[in-house]
Amino acid sequence: MPQGKPVAVPQDGLTTRQRRNRPLLMLHTGEMKGKSTAAFGLALRAWNQGWPIGVFQFVKSAKWKVGEENAFKALGRLHDETGEGAPVEWHKMGEGWSWSRKQGTEEDHAAAALEGWREIARRLAAEQHGLYVLDEFTYPMHWGWVDVEEVVATLRDRPGHQHVVITGRHAPQALIDAADLVVAMTKVKHPMDAGQKGQRGIEW
Amino acid sequence: MPQGKPVAVPQDGLTTRQRRNRPLLMLHTGEMKGKSTAAFGLALRAWNQGWPIGVFQFVKSAKWKVGEENAFKALGRLHDETGEGAPVEWHKMGEGWSWSRKQGTEEDHAAAALEGWREIARRLAAEQHGLYVLDEFTYPMHWGWVDVEEVVATLRDRPGHQHVVITGRHAPQALIDAADLVVAMTKVKHPMDAGQKGQRGIEW
Repeated sequence: MPQGKPVAVPQDGLTTRQRRNRPLLMLHTGEMKGKSTAAFGLALRAWNQGWPIGVFQFVKSAKWKVGEENAFKALGRLHDETGEGAPVEWHKMGEGWSWSRKQGTEEDHAAAALEGWREIARRLAAEQHGLYVLDEFTYPMHWGWVDVEEVVATLRDRPGHQHVVITGRHAPQALIDAADLVVAMTKVKHPMDAGQKGQRGIEW
Repeated sequence: MPQGKPVAVPQDGLTTRQRRNRPLLMLHTGEMKGKSTAAFGLALRAWNQGWPIGVFQFVKSAKWKVGEENAFKALGRLHDETGEGAPVEWHKMGEGWSWSRKQGTEEDHAAAALEGWREIARRLAAEQHGLYVLDEFTYPMHWGWVDVEEVVATLRDRPGHQHVVITGRHAPQALIDAADLVVAMTKVKHPMDAGQKGQRGIEW
């Protein structure tokens, strides 16, 4: 539900309308489920607004998030056929990024992550998407596979009206500082505490 | 990413497979964004699994979440036309529940919330959906519009294989106790702190 009025109006020379429509850098972090699912929920809104969506999954396994992937690919096809919604591109590390020639080959994960980030930086410069979902992108930052300062500077200086949502644990402080919105998903209770393993349709 | 092994294996007489596939009662609570968006992200997985989805929004405004609503209605139509995914029903309070004859009339919110819950209880008994999204349903509980003990007992004793996710702040303790999974969305940083109001495509 609407959350009411902002607590302070900044002296930034912007009108409320300009400030309202400022593109956002969002971060979903914390140890608990919901980081990626909330990012994909947000992408539903972007789809409805007609903003071209680019999903970049910095994970190895193809099994996880296949539900979201299939649903968004269906929404992307629907757009291509009827014009409803927005185009959707879905790229994932692991089998080789889909724009790369190195598909299907054995990969060095650090090199693949860096290659993914370089592509995202090019797309940001070209204003290619309205919403970027950089799923689990905190890990390449945390592990030093990509340069955090360079990532933050590129995101901060991105042109036009491009929203970005980044998910994952261990978010670097510089990213938290740069983000407009940071949500931590925290655990109150998890089925694994009661001995339950992940299940199809719920965990992926 | 997969979270590894459960910390303890319960003495409940179930096999791992039975336990793995146990239908879940999930709760997304806390003061921050992401509760509903994560629930709708979860619904994407259910759609991909072919589980019939029932969304019940216990809110007044039609503006908020229209992005998710449009995207899920598109996914529901896609299912109806091609058989892909799962059927989607989307019901909301405010203009009158869509199954009710009282559509478009002025409503007593407490009565409408109770009417919504009664319908959900009937559907649970009939095993009508694979996933129920009871969006902002904590508020009718918190405000005493529905009986928390009755809700918890009905959810706990629901037959078959029906997943339920409930969103909203002020979750009653009895609901937390009954839930298999409880996530709190907590604030680290919000754009309204910097004087920014909600914006289209992000907040709805």
